[in-house]
Amino acid sequence: MSDLILGIDGGGTLCRAALADGTGAILGRGTSGPANILTDADGAARHIVEAARAALEQAGLGAADLFSIPVFLGLAGSTVPRAAQEIRARLPFARLALDSDGLVALEGALGPGDGSVAVIGTGTIYFIRQAGQMETVGGWGFVLGDLGGGARIGQAAMQEAILAHDGIRTPSALTSVLMAQFGGSPAAMVDFAHSARPADFAERAALVFDHAETGDSTALRVIRLSAHAIDEALDRLYAVAGPLPLCLVGGLADRYAPWIAERHRSRLRKPRGDGLAGAIALAQRHFVPGTGAAA
Amino acid sequence: MSDLILGIDGGGTLCRAALADGTGAILGRGTSGPANILTDADGAARHIVEAARAALEQAGLGAADLFSIPVFLGLAGSTVPRAAQEIRARLPFARLALDSDGLVALEGALGPGDGSVAVIGTGTIYFIRQAGQMETVGGWGFVLGDLGGGARIGQAAMQEAILAHDGIRTPSALTSVLMAQFGGSPAAMVDFAHSARPADFAERAALVFDHAETGDSTALRVIRLSAHAIDEALDRLYAVAGPLPLCLVGGLADRYAPWIAERHRSRLRKPRGDGLAGAIALAQRHFVPGTGAAA
Repeated sequence: MSDLILGIDGGGTLCRAALADGTGAILGRGTSGPANILTDADGAARHIVEAARAALEQAGLGAADLFSIPVFLGLAGSTVPRAAQEIRARLPFARLALDSDGLVALEGALGPGDGSVAVIGTGTIYFIRQAGQMETVGGWGFVLGDLGGGARIGQAAMQEAILAHDGIRTPSALTSVLMAQFGGSPAAMVDFAHSARPADFAERAALVFDHAETGDSTALRVIRLSAHAIDEALDRLYAVAGPLPLCLVGGLADRYAPWIAERHRSRLRKPRGDGLAGAIALAQRHFVPGTGAAA
Repeated sequence: MSDLILGIDGGGTLCRAALADGTGAILGRGTSGPANILTDADGAARHIVEAARAALEQAGLGAADLFSIPVFLGLAGSTVPRAAQEIRARLPFARLALDSDGLVALEGALGPGDGSVAVIGTGTIYFIRQAGQMETVGGWGFVLGDLGGGARIGQAAMQEAILAHDGIRTPSALTSVLMAQFGGSPAAMVDFAHSARPADFAERAALVFDHAETGDSTALRVIRLSAHAIDEALDRLYAVAGPLPLCLVGGLADRYAPWIAERHRSRLRKPRGDGLAGAIALAQRHFVPGTGAAA
């Protein structure tokens, strides 16, 4: 049992866990539901344990081993002291280290060095590590932030479909496809939108990128404005950290690569791995003798 | 009691009633709460009766007269047949005529002739009357519509305050004032926004106009984009109805007048009266012999 480690990457949509040996080789994986420690500490704790247990099970270990294997957790919201305290109190692990989802994303993408990572999925958040210090930009959620994220893209495209329906803007293939999803009824689209979660809007982001790639005028407007919002945030990272390595990660990272400004494209690095790989690497550094100093 | 009439202007925020004699002279007024017949028919019926009763009371009449005086109601959502049926079934009036809030706004602003009216308050909605036929543009609500309305202005300005906090965009007096309203905490601003109603965002619109008028760079960006959205909708009205008279009404109408495009400014008419005046005029035409044919 010596030198087994668990890495956990917990976010607002999913919690993922991996069991590894002391060299970082993955022995088992597990996935469960949301681990939003800010809004639901009980649910987050339950999903963290569920994902960890599934990873142990895949490696042939029992639930009892959960209590002895050291764990590194990268959790959204962990920089809020109250949330970090609450989640620690609810977890069964004997030895655990807790840090942000940003740190594991950055470690996974770039390794232990300095650099920046843009996490572009349903929302958008940016992390910079400089001389070992982490800084966060963005990540404020759908209503006032997350510019360039999938939810804002989906919402903007649906808004364009309504404007096209009213004859205020020119319709396009994209606005027709979106309106057809609601039986051609703007009232049905508005009804949907009033109870939609960000993830529901974000489901339409891929469709918008698809249409932008074929030159659809509405999709081009939405994607160009979104890419401009990402560019502005990346300019901020550059102003803070200078020409450090930069990775785009998250569900929309690959879709955005051709749309962001050349000044940023030219310094993009392909990410080494994901946040779960980062959590395993950090678990190694923390808990396995001889693999580096604790962060 | 002969020739007394009631006019009702019912919207999502307020319901207003006026009692008038056959010449249209106002004898009493009453105001109550929201009359949103789409989402709350019972509440709407209650507020309509409450406003009507208050108007009678101010004129020295009793609640019993409610059942005999003919009423013209302009209600948001009345173009939805189910909603119109539901509200009719809940009202005590012996003689009533029901039409849209758009018709009473247009009648109040322009009188009985053809023309267009842009209602710019918390949201935005546009009405055109051409050869007696009404057409509606916009009015889709905060999440996917209402471009240029006060709620969207407030939200956009708060988003700018968050971007300024993150160093992504340049701060201004406006972003500082907004952030100070939340003790300088973007997290507090985001918390507020997640439970805010459109009216809560719209409360900040006047502040944004104030700053735009002093040349604040953030306010200028927000107001120019908002005025552009209004201009696009007015272009649509022009395309549909040609150079008919145009009025801006609603809480932000006067603020917008200097910001909309010259091509629209030059055909603006000062509104004659408000929606309640329109409801009284329509009640006259419907119920008072010799004041014109029923619409």
